[in-house]
Amino acid sequence: MPDFTDTLQPSAIPTGPDILSKERANSNVPIDELATHLLSRNDFLNRQERVLRILEKEPLFNKSKQLNLSRPDRYRLGLARAKKLRRLADEYGWDAEDMGMSQYLCDDVSPYSKLISLVHYAMFVVTIQEQGSEEQKAYWMPKIDAMDVIGCYAQTELGHGSNVKGLECEARWDPKTKEFVLHSPYISSSKWWNGTMGRTANHAIVVAQLKVPKTADATEFVNYGPHPFVVQIRDLKTHEPLEGIAVGDIGPKYGYASMDNGYMLFDHFRIPHSAMLSNYSRIDPNTCTYSKPANPAVVYGSLTAVRASIIMHARLIIARAVTIGVRYTCVRRQFQDRDTKDKTSPELSVLDYPTVQIRILPLLATAFALHYTGDAMQKLYERTRAQITTGDFSKLAVLHAQSSGLKSLCTELAANSIETCRRAMGGHGFGGGSGFIQLNNDYLSKPTVEGDNWMITQQTASYMIKRMAAAVASKGKAEDELEQSCRDWLHDVGVNGDSGGKLSPLPILANDEAIVHAFQRRSRHLTHRAYLAREVEKQGWNSMQIQLRAISHAESEAILVTNFHLALKPAPHQDQAPEPLSPTLRSHLTTLFRLFALHTMDHSARDFFKAAAVSDSDLDQLPAKIQDLMTQIRPHAVRLVDSWKIPDFLLDSALGRYDGKVYEDLFNRAHRLNPLNEETFNPYYQSDEIVMGSGRDELKRILSKL
Amino acid sequence: MPDFTDTLQPSAIPTGPDILSKERANSNVPIDELATHLLSRNDFLNRQERVLRILEKEPLFNKSKQLNLSRPDRYRLGLARAKKLRRLADEYGWDAEDMGMSQYLCDDVSPYSKLISLVHYAMFVVTIQEQGSEEQKAYWMPKIDAMDVIGCYAQTELGHGSNVKGLECEARWDPKTKEFVLHSPYISSSKWWNGTMGRTANHAIVVAQLKVPKTADATEFVNYGPHPFVVQIRDLKTHEPLEGIAVGDIGPKYGYASMDNGYMLFDHFRIPHSAMLSNYSRIDPNTCTYSKPANPAVVYGSLTAVRASIIMHARLIIARAVTIGVRYTCVRRQFQDRDTKDKTSPELSVLDYPTVQIRILPLLATAFALHYTGDAMQKLYERTRAQITTGDFSKLAVLHAQSSGLKSLCTELAANSIETCRRAMGGHGFGGGSGFIQLNNDYLSKPTVEGDNWMITQQTASYMIKRMAAAVASKGKAEDELEQSCRDWLHDVGVNGDSGGKLSPLPILANDEAIVHAFQRRSRHLTHRAYLAREVEKQGWNSMQIQLRAISHAESEAILVTNFHLALKPAPHQDQAPEPLSPTLRSHLTTLFRLFALHTMDHSARDFFKAAAVSDSDLDQLPAKIQDLMTQIRPHAVRLVDSWKIPDFLLDSALGRYDGKVYEDLFNRAHRLNPLNEETFNPYYQSDEIVMGSGRDELKRILSKL
Repeated sequence: MPDFTDTLQPSAIPTGPDILSKERANSNVPIDELATHLLSRNDFLNRQERVLRILEKEPLFNKSKQLNLSRPDRYRLGLARAKKLRRLADEYGWDAEDMGMSQYLCDDVSPYSKLISLVHYAMFVVTIQEQGSEEQKAYWMPKIDAMDVIGCYAQTELGHGSNVKGLECEARWDPKTKEFVLHSPYISSSKWWNGTMGRTANHAIVVAQLKVPKTADATEFVNYGPHPFVVQIRDLKTHEPLEGIAVGDIGPKYGYASMDNGYMLFDHFRIPHSAMLSNYSRIDPNTCTYSKPANPAVVYGSLTAVRASIIMHARLIIARAVTIGVRYTCVRRQFQDRDTKDKTSPELSVLDYPTVQIRILPLLATAFALHYTGDAMQKLYERTRAQITTGDFSKLAVLHAQSSGLKSLCTELAANSIETCRRAMGGHGFGGGSGFIQLNNDYLSKPTVEGDNWMITQQTASYMIKRMAAAVASKGKAEDELEQSCRDWLHDVGVNGDSGGKLSPLPILANDEAIVHAFQRRSRHLTHRAYLAREVEKQGWNSMQIQLRAISHAESEAILVTNFHLALKPAPHQDQAPEPLSPTLRSHLTTLFRLFALHTMDHSARDFFKAAAVSDSDLDQLPAKIQDLMTQIRPHAVRLVDSWKIPDFLLDSALGRYDGKVYEDLFNRAHRLNPLNEETFNPYYQSDEIVMGSGRDELKRILSKL
Repeated sequence: MPDFTDTLQPSAIPTGPDILSKERANSNVPIDELATHLLSRNDFLNRQERVLRILEKEPLFNKSKQLNLSRPDRYRLGLARAKKLRRLADEYGWDAEDMGMSQYLCDDVSPYSKLISLVHYAMFVVTIQEQGSEEQKAYWMPKIDAMDVIGCYAQTELGHGSNVKGLECEARWDPKTKEFVLHSPYISSSKWWNGTMGRTANHAIVVAQLKVPKTADATEFVNYGPHPFVVQIRDLKTHEPLEGIAVGDIGPKYGYASMDNGYMLFDHFRIPHSAMLSNYSRIDPNTCTYSKPANPAVVYGSLTAVRASIIMHARLIIARAVTIGVRYTCVRRQFQDRDTKDKTSPELSVLDYPTVQIRILPLLATAFALHYTGDAMQKLYERTRAQITTGDFSKLAVLHAQSSGLKSLCTELAANSIETCRRAMGGHGFGGGSGFIQLNNDYLSKPTVEGDNWMITQQTASYMIKRMAAAVASKGKAEDELEQSCRDWLHDVGVNGDSGGKLSPLPILANDEAIVHAFQRRSRHLTHRAYLAREVEKQGWNSMQIQLRAISHAESEAILVTNFHLALKPAPHQDQAPEPLSPTLRSHLTTLFRLFALHTMDHSARDFFKAAAVSDSDLDQLPAKIQDLMTQIRPHAVRLVDSWKIPDFLLDSALGRYDGKVYEDLFNRAHRLNPLNEETFNPYYQSDEIVMGSGRDELKRILSKL
């Protein structure tokens, strides 16, 4: 409805678009070169452009009002979108990467999640491919490809997540009928969290304790531990759960509104012998003999690839948060400089305030830091894939061990980046126009899934302590790079590992190489202390947990800093992108490297001092140095975030729009796109009426939903 | 519908209820004594019990399914509940404190928010009472009490929040018609965020730039700055906006779903002379003469009371998060002890892991720390209220200046506590049964409203630097306690303020008094450095912002530690509760004090070393000491959180239930209370059908909402 607001403009001179144009004009960051440098893997940029064009035309993918939907409607929309994407894939002949891109841009955690998710439908397919016999694969894969079979992966239970050995769902072999009997003996044995299972799937991989009678007529059962079974769970026509199965959606969560994470219980539900995936392990249906699985070494390598993709995803999350943060804090102006004499001078962009810079610019640098480590992991995996599939993963061993710590640190950095940027944007950050609400709600799952971030640091720490122990023992040749690094450190500090001894602090303010060494030295120092506590003083493992996490994070930070530095080396280096960096770009990236490294160092300054890695006086200078680096980056912030090429369609943010029309967009969302404004309410407490003129109908309707 | 799941039990032995019973049996924390100690102000505990009984009976206040509602429905429910509460108040003769309690327990940010909110409807009333003339008060107050007038407070605009001087909405005095003309010249001058305004209010206090012609027939206007006007904005019968006003709800936000935060613009909207609140300032309608406001010193005192209540609220937020965190991490068991020899030993409660303790137990201690400072502020305010109303606030001056920093630190601690506890609870923390979703979504507004947490630390720092400058000048008697403390510090360190000189580190591990002094010494040290930078080296204010925030936080931490320690002093002390603490309780509180203080110290260890407050070797011992304190607190954690007496009705958490029936409740919410499970879906992508059997209807319905 037209009204007097239609002709109003924002007051600010310069306007948002003026400001961003000026920001872009005053920086020499080569956006296209940088974008290609960051995003050319798998033709990402062209693919994004191509798929974006298609999605933008479809009204179903319009995001601007979806925050108003109820959770059940959000699932319905998610399902409608998932179907549409699959049909578009048929129509345009999309490959798996295109499908992944379409889900990335759609930004729903899709009930199909076939191609980009690492855990749900994908796990269904991966498990059949890796653990199914040739016969089983031949049977299932065509049905899966046609999507007649819509599968989910049901491992986690209400009472057991990380501790897979403790799962309670059981599959007992019945030699008489030659069937397995799936059963959930307790509430806590209900499958839980499993994506796609709640409402969408008609099949599931069910991970259950395999229990087999000692002999064909024995009443005693042997438990062979958790094994995967393919199970039809719903009728293929009516889509109702099969008799003996209780299955449903677990209800609202922080995020994942469009995904039907499910629960499922079995009541003595019978499945045929063929249900058990038998590439590695099988039951002889006649003798009840169980054959053991071969060691699935393959998983070891592909997990590294999965972890690499988690890091690459995390960097895009940070880039997205920072894109919004940088653009809006340029457009937003508040207060004049307190020290200015000119009382008519314009208000400052809030990004000019150091207290805003210190929250956003180190995160900008962090997106780059994650990129180079994710990239290095992917390249290493690709180079050695041939060896890996044959079970030789010597090149990957260290990186794999370190990848738990990297998953922990990187998803933590990304999850926290969203809230940090939001708070830096003031009041409007709390509104729907921030573009942060769904992003935050969905991403907050990451620190606790696919290995709880605190728990998995023990794996990294355990490996590091072992390498340090080997280095102390120093028998023969070092087994891997990490052990060699421990040996070098032991040599430098002297045999007793007292780092106060022979080490001199590194000149971190003069020399980037020294920064890298300082991070490595600090990690070795902490590892050695943990080695002494565990191996020499025999401290209890659990009592060391906090220390173990610190080692893991220190090592992960060292890896991030090392890979970032390596990638910028002017000398040809095997890990470098084919195109050499232009001097301008290298110079900007070097500033970002220093900001990331020194800001990270400043947060653990005492560690670096204790490790004799950095002098006390250099540490004292870090805050000023960091502020100086931020001042160097500030003029280039807009073009640096532009280079990540996050489209407005994905951002869905009034504050982070490429064109800077922040206030127009916020007002449009409120005044023209808000369904709550379509009704007039009765505000008087004496009346039960909610919507003006509707009597008690609305109250009854709402009560029925409680 | 009954099914085979109805008879299932959780598997775990011991069960959740067994575990919590045992936890409670094995601790000697005197719950009732502690609850009275913490919560007797204004008869909180009895009031909570009394109001709770009433709300629990009303189906409208059932929370278990509300996360499923759409945002528009969430407002409708919020309005229905607000009305119901107001009717209950009439029925039961509730006073203002009872009303506040009912809103606290209902846990909606109510569209009425009359009594507990500090900003919305309350500001409407407070402004009329403080700034209205006697005549205006006599006219408005009866209408407000009867709720015929439903008001909101419209100050913040789309383009201006903290910088009130920059507001763009204007009220021009028209001497011909003797009216003010309210006008919003730009989109950015739209009022924005104002609670209750979007759909509920029929009146508003509009803060606008008062512009008055130089003389009655001049065309030139003088701007007298922002002033408040009472404006009717909607028709009292139809509730439609009046002609010349565009007003509505701003749309979905992180939280506050039940609150209609609004926008509003005026198109040359005329209001009478009587609309301007004229207790302090007025326009003579005949001469256009403007009379200046008296200095509203009263605000200065009441702001301290408001800040105290923000801290008291923050402590309850932390207590709530920690109650859920502690109970669930006791019930949840995962893995055996890695070092155990007994492979049949039960899995450990995750709260037995130091990596879980380090996230939850310091927060438990933090709730107590905030309590004693909020309490001290309230008591000081009450003791000196008489002086304050006469404009003499000498006693409060320091505390008031420090209150900005305290607001910043305490709301930050509380906001972060929720997410920290959530992540410590693993996967189920992400689910709706955590009880954290709405809590988090609503509370995350606090770090940026009522003074942005980063910005307002400048006020505290500015005051501290001034006191240090006065102490350095040392003329006559010190003006306040803070200056005296600065003088004492200067005396101790020697005239040049070089803290490396005469100070010896304090024995913090031997002596609690020493801990308090260490915090104060660190704050003085940082203040002095900032003083040198600003006053001697003449550094730019903005360039010092990060440092200023650090001072403010250091001082706030010192205040928290000081008040906590003071409250536990065995000697009779003026700030102590009337009932002396039992030795058992004092001992537990002392452990919590040490945990809070040393954990806080450990996070800024280098600061304390640099200030010569703590020795390097004592700092090295902090992690072990903290772990030891956590081991002492661990057996008492459940009874300590019980003492905060947060009812299950408020928690609305399957994980945090008092009785420990975690898995039963999670399953019940999923299987019996989830509306998404009431429909069967068509999952096949070839079809547009969403709900099985409904054809294209659902798709059309959803598209119409996008």
